[in-house]
Amino acid sequence: MRAVTYTGARTLEVETRMPIPPGSGEVQISVDYVGICGTDLHIFHGDMDARVHRPAIVGHEMSGRIAALGDGVSGWSVGQPVTVMPLIWDGTCPACLAGNQHLCHKLTFIGIDSDGALQGSWNVPANVLVALPADISLEHAALVEPTAVAVHDVRRAELSPGEKALVVGGGPVGLLIALVARREGGDVQIVELDPYRRGVAEQLGFKTLDPRDVDVAQVVNDWTGGAGVDIAFEVSGAAGGVATAVDHLSVRGRLVLVAIHSQPREVNLFKFFWRELSLIAARLYVRADFERAVELLADGTIPAEVLISSVEPLDNTAAAFAALEGGGVMKVLISCQT
Amino acid sequence: MRAVTYTGARTLEVETRMPIPPGSGEVQISVDYVGICGTDLHIFHGDMDARVHRPAIVGHEMSGRIAALGDGVSGWSVGQPVTVMPLIWDGTCPACLAGNQHLCHKLTFIGIDSDGALQGSWNVPANVLVALPADISLEHAALVEPTAVAVHDVRRAELSPGEKALVVGGGPVGLLIALVARREGGDVQIVELDPYRRGVAEQLGFKTLDPRDVDVAQVVNDWTGGAGVDIAFEVSGAAGGVATAVDHLSVRGRLVLVAIHSQPREVNLFKFFWRELSLIAARLYVRADFERAVELLADGTIPAEVLISSVEPLDNTAAAFAALEGGGVMKVLISCQT
Repeated sequence: MRAVTYTGARTLEVETRMPIPPGSGEVQISVDYVGICGTDLHIFHGDMDARVHRPAIVGHEMSGRIAALGDGVSGWSVGQPVTVMPLIWDGTCPACLAGNQHLCHKLTFIGIDSDGALQGSWNVPANVLVALPADISLEHAALVEPTAVAVHDVRRAELSPGEKALVVGGGPVGLLIALVARREGGDVQIVELDPYRRGVAEQLGFKTLDPRDVDVAQVVNDWTGGAGVDIAFEVSGAAGGVATAVDHLSVRGRLVLVAIHSQPREVNLFKFFWRELSLIAARLYVRADFERAVELLADGTIPAEVLISSVEPLDNTAAAFAALEGGGVMKVLISCQT
Repeated sequence: MRAVTYTGARTLEVETRMPIPPGSGEVQISVDYVGICGTDLHIFHGDMDARVHRPAIVGHEMSGRIAALGDGVSGWSVGQPVTVMPLIWDGTCPACLAGNQHLCHKLTFIGIDSDGALQGSWNVPANVLVALPADISLEHAALVEPTAVAVHDVRRAELSPGEKALVVGGGPVGLLIALVARREGGDVQIVELDPYRRGVAEQLGFKTLDPRDVDVAQVVNDWTGGAGVDIAFEVSGAAGGVATAVDHLSVRGRLVLVAIHSQPREVNLFKFFWRELSLIAARLYVRADFERAVELLADGTIPAEVLISSVEPLDNTAAAFAALEGGGVMKVLISCQT
């Protein structure tokens, strides 16, 4: 089988390896598709070398079929389509004991802290598997993991039908949040600087705002009858994105912090006080989010074909990473068997 | 009657005025006690001159008895002990229509935006009155308003019995929050730099932490079994207080923002993301908070005698403000009839 390995900043190599039989409690997955996400790009840039061993196989947004079962695995069958919720928790830390296993103090994220999906044949513990419906497109199913992120974010927002939500940042996760929020009855608009991304958002039926072109405050004022939005999702990761999200919230509005801000940000806490705002951070997902994400992809709520810009053969992975850096694409999948 | 007027930065004058009969829908209160709070000090320093007309009568933490009823007022009787929830909302803005009248876009705060309680005889709309039990000490009842702030803050925290809470800042509001949180079943410790304030907190039975003396992270780690605290109340208003509050929260911990931060603060949003923290801002109170505050003062949950450092005659108001600036006092009351 072939595997893509990260060996150091900006270096991905395609290796041929012998598949390893699944160990006890493991399954072997024949990986069909792997989506490349922002975290994979961070690893590629060398920004996460303190955390990522080398050579490392990255990739955690995936779909495939079970190829073999290790000893003691039951409830799964060879040939079954699956995806993976790539989290392993210790079950004993205070976060796990409080029921927040996805925030385990010693969380292992498969694809960052251990080898991921960018290989033809991947062994994982059976308990990270998530079943897929028999008739789902495996290309579409590679979007289950980022969709689960979006489901989790919208759950954290406690969005009620009819609420108005501003999504700040219209990349893949921002658009998935917008789609999930709309499905839950939210009235959604998207702030995005990049014209390509705005185009995709509009193709999905969303109104978009370019803050260099329109007075966002005026638009929000007109849209919300002077109230401000109920929810702002900060998905941009930019300092300006935080300010935009805060500025347009209604009294008791909720800012859902999705993006990773590695630098401290100046936050206008007076605005939080004055309007009794809340900031709710969201990270990863729980199993219910994955199961909901599978439903939303299966029923067409997430039009994956619009979000998937291209599907590249595994040998082209390095070029696909480079293309993502160049922009003008949304989600790029690697086909691991071609 | 006498009234204390603010005429400009650092200038308070005692005037003699003719009492005005209460207008239609108003009551006249014979004011007994007025507490001086941080906002009054801000006004005194001239920091709020853009908002406060001059001459202005400040004061909004008070107790007294009804002296006269204006036309059309029913349900109240002369001689009845009362306090005031000093908010007037327009009832028509989006915040009011959503049920958040205390966050009205055009809120009038009596004692800031209109004349307050530092006078012998005070006319207010009847609908801002809050009834007091016949047997409550009127000195103690002057603490209803700041206690209502604390009740509101603890409600915003959604504290459950057994949860661990760190109060950052041990001034009057911080101590009231600690007392209310303890009454609701919280396990509370207080971070405070000032030794006098720590002494009062300890007199109230709280464990206190001086971050210059102890390693707060280690104390919190030992206290919470490595989990971190469930809730941190930021009552200090200092940049360092925000960081302290964020640093010691557990996974899914809640930072309740009580203090007013007029400057933007650098906030470590990565910590919010990593532990799925929430920041919940709290401002003012609703009527239920006032009613609960009356109960907590009447039943001794709030040992007002420990919090009231001195009671000064009205003619000494300027000296009382100066004493508050000097520190070494907690709550100072002005006796408006002596």
